[in-house]
Amino acid sequence: MYALPITRAEDFPAWYQAVVREADMAEASPVRGCMVIKPWGYGIWELMQRQLDNRIKELGFENCYFPIFIPMSFFSKEAEHVEGFAKEMAVVTHHRLRTVGRKLEIDPDSKLDEPLIVRPTSETIIGDSFHRWVQSYRDLPLRINQWANIVRWEMRTRLFLRTAEFLWQEGHSAHADEKEARESTMYALELYREFSETVLAIPTLAGEKPENERFPGADNTYSIEAMMQDGKALQAGTSHYLGTHFAEAQDIRYQNRDGQEVYCYTTSWGFSTRMVGGLVMTHGDDDGLRCPPAVAPRQIVIVPMLRDKPEDVDVLAFCDKLQVELSMRTCFGMPIRALVDKTANKSADKRWTWIRRGAPIICEIGARDASRGVITFIRRDQLREGEKIASKSLPFAEFAEKAPLLLVNIQSTLLDEAKARLNASIHVDIDTFESLEAYFGIGEEDEDKAGATKGWARCAWSRPTGAALADVVERLKALKLTIRNAPMDQPKSLRPCIFTGAAGVEEILIARAY
Amino acid sequence: MYALPITRAEDFPAWYQAVVREADMAEASPVRGCMVIKPWGYGIWELMQRQLDNRIKELGFENCYFPIFIPMSFFSKEAEHVEGFAKEMAVVTHHRLRTVGRKLEIDPDSKLDEPLIVRPTSETIIGDSFHRWVQSYRDLPLRINQWANIVRWEMRTRLFLRTAEFLWQEGHSAHADEKEARESTMYALELYREFSETVLAIPTLAGEKPENERFPGADNTYSIEAMMQDGKALQAGTSHYLGTHFAEAQDIRYQNRDGQEVYCYTTSWGFSTRMVGGLVMTHGDDDGLRCPPAVAPRQIVIVPMLRDKPEDVDVLAFCDKLQVELSMRTCFGMPIRALVDKTANKSADKRWTWIRRGAPIICEIGARDASRGVITFIRRDQLREGEKIASKSLPFAEFAEKAPLLLVNIQSTLLDEAKARLNASIHVDIDTFESLEAYFGIGEEDEDKAGATKGWARCAWSRPTGAALADVVERLKALKLTIRNAPMDQPKSLRPCIFTGAAGVEEILIARAY
Repeated sequence: MYALPITRAEDFPAWYQAVVREADMAEASPVRGCMVIKPWGYGIWELMQRQLDNRIKELGFENCYFPIFIPMSFFSKEAEHVEGFAKEMAVVTHHRLRTVGRKLEIDPDSKLDEPLIVRPTSETIIGDSFHRWVQSYRDLPLRINQWANIVRWEMRTRLFLRTAEFLWQEGHSAHADEKEARESTMYALELYREFSETVLAIPTLAGEKPENERFPGADNTYSIEAMMQDGKALQAGTSHYLGTHFAEAQDIRYQNRDGQEVYCYTTSWGFSTRMVGGLVMTHGDDDGLRCPPAVAPRQIVIVPMLRDKPEDVDVLAFCDKLQVELSMRTCFGMPIRALVDKTANKSADKRWTWIRRGAPIICEIGARDASRGVITFIRRDQLREGEKIASKSLPFAEFAEKAPLLLVNIQSTLLDEAKARLNASIHVDIDTFESLEAYFGIGEEDEDKAGATKGWARCAWSRPTGAALADVVERLKALKLTIRNAPMDQPKSLRPCIFTGAAGVEEILIARAY
Repeated sequence: MYALPITRAEDFPAWYQAVVREADMAEASPVRGCMVIKPWGYGIWELMQRQLDNRIKELGFENCYFPIFIPMSFFSKEAEHVEGFAKEMAVVTHHRLRTVGRKLEIDPDSKLDEPLIVRPTSETIIGDSFHRWVQSYRDLPLRINQWANIVRWEMRTRLFLRTAEFLWQEGHSAHADEKEARESTMYALELYREFSETVLAIPTLAGEKPENERFPGADNTYSIEAMMQDGKALQAGTSHYLGTHFAEAQDIRYQNRDGQEVYCYTTSWGFSTRMVGGLVMTHGDDDGLRCPPAVAPRQIVIVPMLRDKPEDVDVLAFCDKLQVELSMRTCFGMPIRALVDKTANKSADKRWTWIRRGAPIICEIGARDASRGVITFIRRDQLREGEKIASKSLPFAEFAEKAPLLLVNIQSTLLDEAKARLNASIHVDIDTFESLEAYFGIGEEDEDKAGATKGWARCAWSRPTGAALADVVERLKALKLTIRNAPMDQPKSLRPCIFTGAAGVEEILIARAY
């Protein structure tokens, strides 16, 4: 009945893989853990990139590019940073191959004096530049951003969600004082929240990560957390206040107005191709992806229904005219991306291709439509009425005129749906660890496959640290749960801590997570 | 007298480094041969990227992303490809570090079964996907493009021109027949030529590379060649017709209309950050870069001349008004990029900063200008009258109205200058090897430093192959010369070959090159 071989209810992880495959978004490569991002998936990423990049520039950040390789010794400079990252990284040890007979091998004479690490993040290599660039208070704030590929040698990989190589944006800033650095950290977080909501139609909760989930070397780590349709959380962007840790480790100092040499306060924040996966798990249905119009590489796809008859010429001309008419209009600040699908496939196959890919509007134009001047179309977000595909018709001029509005409406419908699901799936009535256990402990075996939405729990805690926190983390781990963050909006009065019974200090989100 | 510590005439290579440094375009990094691209340099690259990307998409190519790592064995598949590339590449051999005490080291247990190569170009890894994506003639042509970082372990590096890591675009296509593949190769070449001329204001000569300069594994390699101000050639973009070599090596086959399994014809073509260096060496002068407006990150920079007096408020308000007025107008299909430089530096320093960076128009606004409503500005392409800086004035409204035209005029002035230089420096009167030797052989010791423009020679040859070609290459090498390409436009009758005296077959460009 549905366009995919498997439904969300049957097996959510398998459904996810099916969408990514059937929507032609990405595939596994012959290189362990690395993916090939195909045109539809990359087109979505490009649109994310452009709209995020505009916002980053408006925040006063300028794009730069830093080396992909980082000398191994750089990771030793910041002690906590080593601990956090010195695990799974790609290490370059040689710089030449040689042919022996017809066989290629590493030339042993080309061994590097110092191994190079393929960047798992760029704080240390960017800090090296900041050290040179910052001399006086006049050089501050320093605000740069980089779009780059990142490598972390993940053992268990899943397309987009967790891959050895991924693409991301990393913002880095240095400031003269703590207040400005903290503000910058929060601006980046809000930028992510607003971008996810406006552009990706993904509502998130912004808040601070608990101590055990901090970026290695950070004073504070903040995240936005999105809820997938299986009720699990996906960390959708992080922003770190680094204090003076990295500045001290890398000697990023400036002369202040009083002529003293002092350390800078630094921040960093990142957003990656992981969110293409988040888009799938937020908006996909059993027929494939439903792509929010703001990031759909093709917003309106026109399928000519050709029959190898003389009328075909008129149908194609009518489709082309519609495409031109739509392309001259703008939506979300860009020209509408309309396409006439002229590939050699059958029109029914084309319809289902674009349904699986999630093109927001699919027009199917037959000879009768062309002669009557009517556009028959499907809204991907309202695909079915019962088992039937729901299509509507509008006169040519009216359709063209309403197209921008239709796209905006689809965007907001997707957001509203996701918001309603998020709000309905945050449980605020769990007051004890026992009730948390009772709620999340049942049926945990089947959780992954059954797609049973357990959602998140929003509970109070006393924000333990050190060993007490480690104990909490262990107790949650037994239930496969993690603390996602402490949301920004906190109630005035708090219930007791569900772990210790002590006075509550803040509310936190507890969830299974990707 | 000039803004740079060294002139082109004194020492061209040192002048080049000075421009890159003083215009804040890039700097060396602590990683051997890798550069840090700073905001002004990266901003130029971003504008190149966007305008090239638009053209690539119009050609019907879609962007994808392929893994940065290529298994070593992939390079063995195409025998000639191995020979050409199996030299200097970054090799990943391990995937984990460990801490021993406080020291980081490679974990010997993490050795990879097969070494991974950091991509020096992607034909082999993309071919692996093409093998899976191409099944039937309906899947062809397959046209994809990738924006990516590339690593080639260069021994002698120079910022932008030759670096271990660089950024580029690589187009790859597969076709059902040879004719279409050859056409696609030539479309890409023309795209580069037109882009260089229109966007970079760099005139080039498009033509075919001689056999010895072909891409490893290609049937034909074409290039566009630009002339730098020292008379040397810079290869500014290449397009390769690969025949069925890669298709055979990687089994890229399709079922044709007759049901037979046949190999595809493939192409590839690339354009890189190298051309940021080409931009400097084409348009730079002794005061720094002169950035063509189409790729200038800031096209019009407004410097408020502040004096710590009450009038400063009016000056700033006037500057902001101008910035808004300019930003609402478009030039080269994009809003004008105008900036008010509000940094804490002295206005004279700001002026020279933007002169060195090559902002096309620099406005200097003092209290008198603001009160009279007048814009005083410098055209960077016509900076000096004798030793004086040449500035002009226009009423506010007239300046704003004329700004797009002024920018277009600066763009075409830079192109005209470069064209005139190119045309004047191609010597067509060299008919024998002896006269070539006499012309290029003299003063060769000082050539590099003296910046004496020898230009190029355009000579006829008989297109020798094999050993005879190797001999020609050696004779030229003794003069530090190379054959750049055989330009597309060839005369009807040809002089005799300057190497052999035999009948000429085509004209070629001979030059010193980067």
